[in-house]
Amino acid sequence: MKKEFVVIGLGRFGSSICRELSEQGMEVMAIDMDEDRVNEFASIASHAVVADTTDESVLKSLGIRNFDHVIVAIGDDIQSSILTTLMLKEVGVKKVTAKAQNDYHEKVLLKIGADQVVHPERDMGRRIANNIVSNNVLDYLELSDEHSIMEIIANDTLAGNTLIDLDIRARYGINIVAIKRGKEIIVSPQADEPILLNDILIIIGADQDIDRFEKKMND
Amino acid sequence: MKKEFVVIGLGRFGSSICRELSEQGMEVMAIDMDEDRVNEFASIASHAVVADTTDESVLKSLGIRNFDHVIVAIGDDIQSSILTTLMLKEVGVKKVTAKAQNDYHEKVLLKIGADQVVHPERDMGRRIANNIVSNNVLDYLELSDEHSIMEIIANDTLAGNTLIDLDIRARYGINIVAIKRGKEIIVSPQADEPILLNDILIIIGADQDIDRFEKKMND
Ligand SMILES: Nc1ncnc2c1ncn2[C@@H]1O[C@H](COP(=O)(O)OP(=O)(O)OP(=O)(O)O)[C@@H](O)[C@H]1O
Ligand SMILES: Nc1ncnc2c1ncn2[C@@H]1O[C@H](COP(=O)(O)OP(=O)(O)OP(=O)(O)O)[C@@H](O)[C@H]1O
Ligand SMILES: [Ca+2]
Ligand SMILES: [Ca+2]
Ligand SMILES: [Ca+2]
Ligand SMILES: [Ca+2]
Repeated sequence: MKKEFVVIGLGRFGSSICRELSEQGMEVMAIDMDEDRVNEFASIASHAVVADTTDESVLKSLGIRNFDHVIVAIGDDIQSSILTTLMLKEVGVKKVTAKAQNDYHEKVLLKIGADQVVHPERDMGRRIANNIVSNNVLDYLELSDEHSIMEIIANDTLAGNTLIDLDIRARYGINIVAIKRGKEIIVSPQADEPILLNDILIIIGADQDIDRFEKKMND
Repeated sequence: MKKEFVVIGLGRFGSSICRELSEQGMEVMAIDMDEDRVNEFASIASHAVVADTTDESVLKSLGIRNFDHVIVAIGDDIQSSILTTLMLKEVGVKKVTAKAQNDYHEKVLLKIGADQVVHPERDMGRRIANNIVSNNVLDYLELSDEHSIMEIIANDTLAGNTLIDLDIRARYGINIVAIKRGKEIIVSPQADEPILLNDILIIIGADQDIDRFEKKMND
């Protein structure tokens, strides 16, 4: 059985969720009180509806409690975001994800039953700051407070060496899980694999070890 | 030599960048035309300045061209974002990252010389949609259009089996690069490592192979 989603609020954040879910073949009902925004989604979402979701009778007439997961992507109007979330949980929606504008907003959303609260601007700010601090780190996945997977671009200090030459695991305690070379992905590279300039190394390890490695390579 | 950053615009996105850069020990000058927002950063950033960055003489008097990297995090006022970015490049700032509200805004920013354009709401919408589609996928890193690293939570179909039992590499062509178990991270797990319920498996592979594995595990 396919999961059915509802996205309420078609600003940049809600639009993007709605598009991506639709592209992945999901059934999505898109709701906004602004008719122009809804019209944009007529051909993208399974259903696109003009409605004010702070009106309980509207939510009921849409049969909203039959959907598996509702995403509340209302931003600036914090009161509407809270009221909508409250009523979604009251009519019995199983899973509600809501966007928060600030910590206070988050606290209220959780108290009234939101199952997941997201802070897109704050989280993307952190990601981008992390990517900016190091010129060599292209992207990363935080595994825990102290461990990450990072994409590091190989500079001329590394290029020309094999993994044995560099002996990264013994010297830094980190592992290269893959190498991205143009369109090719080399998973679990062999010890005699030479690193080429601009190879992207996918590294796993403790943050401080990765940091040490990265500093060394920029010396 | 430490890099020096400027963040212009202290909304949620700019604030978050400013905080994260400061926490990482970077020198950051925080600028906003709103005095209250600037005051919040007095004790966080190296310098916090009230200024309208669309005024060229202001930019010059701040010596902005001596900084390594300026982040323009002005959102709703697209005209100010564009004007600020234009002048930053004209006074000779080497690297400018600017936030775009939409595709048209991005095009203009790139034309006038922005080195990097970011869409926090859109990108976070995509990330969250991807995380939502599958209940088991917690987070991911896109390596290419067709390859990813994913964090998948082990359900009771997997729990109790060792990696040999599951024979994932041969059957799906994917690799488990690490297992996250509570606070512990097991990198390159041995073949006889048993998987426990709620272990988080860090998997690398082609998207369609990971997808196939994930569907199988939810059967
Ligand atoms: N009560 C409501 N019912 C339905 N839609 C609503 C309601 N209140 C607000 N919206 C819609 O939510 C959408 C998102 O609102 P928001 O204020 O976050 O706009 P935005 O800043 O453009 O969004 P983003 O930050 O994602 O770019 C708007 O299109 C708005 O019409
Ligand atoms: N010309 C300018 N000079 C300096 N600061 C500016 C200028 N124009 C706008 N700003 C500041 O940029 C900040 C971000 O503006 P934006 O409209 O994106 O606010 P926001 O929606 O609160 O931000 P976010 O979307 O990151 O949460 C505001 O604090 C605003 O005062
Ligand atoms: Ca907004
Ligand atoms: Ca960390
Ligand atoms: Ca905004
Ligand atoms: Ca993809």
